[in-house]
Amino acid sequence: MRVIGIDPGLRNLGWGVIAVNGARITHVANGICHSDAGDGNLARRLCSLHTQLTEVFREHLPETAAVEHTFVNKDAVATLKLGQARGIALLVPAQFGLEVGEYAPNAVKKTVVGVGHAAKVQIDHMVRLHLPGVRIAGPDAADALAVAICHAHHCQSSGRLQAALQRAAE
Amino acid sequence: MRVIGIDPGLRNLGWGVIAVNGARITHVANGICHSDAGDGNLARRLCSLHTQLTEVFREHLPETAAVEHTFVNKDAVATLKLGQARGIALLVPAQFGLEVGEYAPNAVKKTVVGVGHAAKVQIDHMVRLHLPGVRIAGPDAADALAVAICHAHHCQSSGRLQAALQRAAE
Repeated sequence: MRVIGIDPGLRNLGWGVIAVNGARITHVANGICHSDAGDGNLARRLCSLHTQLTEVFREHLPETAAVEHTFVNKDAVATLKLGQARGIALLVPAQFGLEVGEYAPNAVKKTVVGVGHAAKVQIDHMVRLHLPGVRIAGPDAADALAVAICHAHHCQSSGRLQAALQRAAE
Repeated sequence: MRVIGIDPGLRNLGWGVIAVNGARITHVANGICHSDAGDGNLARRLCSLHTQLTEVFREHLPETAAVEHTFVNKDAVATLKLGQARGIALLVPAQFGLEVGEYAPNAVKKTVVGVGHAAKVQIDHMVRLHLPGVRIAGPDAADALAVAICHAHHCQSSGRLQAALQRAAE
């Protein structure tokens, strides 16, 4: 099963695709969709992100998706900007008929690093441990891969849970 | 020229299309795109709004668009939700190759009512005065029509300005 993780942002929208085979996960691809902060045309920037992310889905054919669930409490303008980019990050997988998991940053860190409060450098390190040999396009792509790993673990656990319940019912 | 105004919202996204012929404006259509607040699947809700709004553009073929520029200062969660819906409201016109104007609520009120601080009922009343015989689908559609009227006036003024500059240069 192919899992895509997305770290939404208006300027840099990170994405990472991993393949899950039983308990084994491997890296498929990662990257960053950019939109030009110097372009005052917000609609055009969102359209560009939509086009780039759609292309990622067409190329790597993920079967399930997860998006990081963040908001910037300190600043309404920043939160609105993030929300607009997040709208695109949620729309694209839904347009491909995928279910979209949402995970808070702390949940992602807890899965990937083991604790809810971890530094960026620690996440990057653990993503590299999970996906040996990976070349990461940047911090937003590392975050996106962490979201994908978190989603894969969550799907595996709920799958295990479901299997256990099924066995118990038989 | 056909102008669409959009009042973004996750549950109710209002839209209104007017036709502008010189100084004369007439009503074309208005309505509300809904997404089910009971559906916990945010990605599916955004996808539904995208599909509905795309259908409006296909049917009414606007040539320019404007979106209300609001944020909810008091609540980061509400601002993020609004941002996500606003991302869709900006994306669709850009996908049709249109420029998208953005107007703060006060600017819209000042154009339509004459003052920056006006009650909802006053906006509704002035929209009906501007567009005789209009049947309005709801408050969000009335706001969207007000945004369209504001954009039409703005385009006319900048057109007049451009014409005046051109005459001055000749």
